[in-house]
Amino acid sequence: MKTQSKRKTIAIDMDGVIADVESQLVKYYEQTYGITTTVEAIQGLSGAEAFPEDSATKKMLNVPGFFRTLEVMPGAIEAVKKLAEQYELYIVSAATEFPLSLLEKIEWLGEHFPFIGWRNIVMCGDKSIIDTDYMIDDHCKNLDFCSGKAIMFNAHHNLRQHHHTRVHNWQEVLALFESFNDQA
Amino acid sequence: MKTQSKRKTIAIDMDGVIADVESQLVKYYEQTYGITTTVEAIQGLSGAEAFPEDSATKKMLNVPGFFRTLEVMPGAIEAVKKLAEQYELYIVSAATEFPLSLLEKIEWLGEHFPFIGWRNIVMCGDKSIIDTDYMIDDHCKNLDFCSGKAIMFNAHHNLRQHHHTRVHNWQEVLALFESFNDQA
Repeated sequence: MKTQSKRKTIAIDMDGVIADVESQLVKYYEQTYGITTTVEAIQGLSGAEAFPEDSATKKMLNVPGFFRTLEVMPGAIEAVKKLAEQYELYIVSAATEFPLSLLEKIEWLGEHFPFIGWRNIVMCGDKSIIDTDYMIDDHCKNLDFCSGKAIMFNAHHNLRQHHHTRVHNWQEVLALFESFNDQA
Repeated sequence: MKTQSKRKTIAIDMDGVIADVESQLVKYYEQTYGITTTVEAIQGLSGAEAFPEDSATKKMLNVPGFFRTLEVMPGAIEAVKKLAEQYELYIVSAATEFPLSLLEKIEWLGEHFPFIGWRNIVMCGDKSIIDTDYMIDDHCKNLDFCSGKAIMFNAHHNLRQHHHTRVHNWQEVLALFESFNDQA
């Protein structure tokens, strides 16, 4: 009985899609372990390969402030605003693994994406029960099980996966959605 | 491409379903406004009718500790544990309207429902993009738009709504699911 909205729906991930996690991990890795790497150097590597010390990725994600101070991905605000004219957008973040991140993520969205209201924010774990027409995400663990069309946002850890439509930046996202020619 | 789990899925609401919000509202209303009412007295009333002072419901829901100290609904733990043997359960709470509640809800679940892992917890707003085989909830705004079978958990504010299957307690939930005869 899904008749609430006639607009097509898009689930948009946060980390690695609208929020720049790669730069932050590189920065925190240097601060915490004194090891310098670069966003360029980690392309094609898994999290464990990119930051091999001491389960570093998980530890860095648990540092208070990590999510609150992320940079916005280039062009994300303008592109999301543009998509919101035509689509019903949901920000869907797999955040419940890191409970301290929940409030930081809500505050971060309030600062950078104030036009996304609380009704359209989802903080979850497994995304397999999220039912939208499109899903933009950087992880196969989410995209492989989504019910709509999967769109893979380029990230250092997903370069070896080729079974989803890939976009490298928000300009490509907009161009892709223009090609879909959905009715408003 | 939804093949991750072959078990049928249930979305279970928190407030008014596994967490006893009515008793807490009655208690906080007396503490805050000095007006005594009872759970029995508010049956059949909307939130605004039950607690008419000064947008009281919304204000009480924003008090730190409100959600963290809720009582568990009678029989909920045992019943949810029983359902978890056969179904894939997701706790789905419309919590993003109250950002301070997010961590409190995660902590509350960790205390009372530690067998529900982070992958199966969803804190959202609008539940219309939640796709499960069943949804147990006390609000029509959620049940009317769910894609699966809607099950209305009895609450003071929903007594006038009759278009969903109603359960009055967790024993009735278990009996209902036994009647479905789903395969494990």
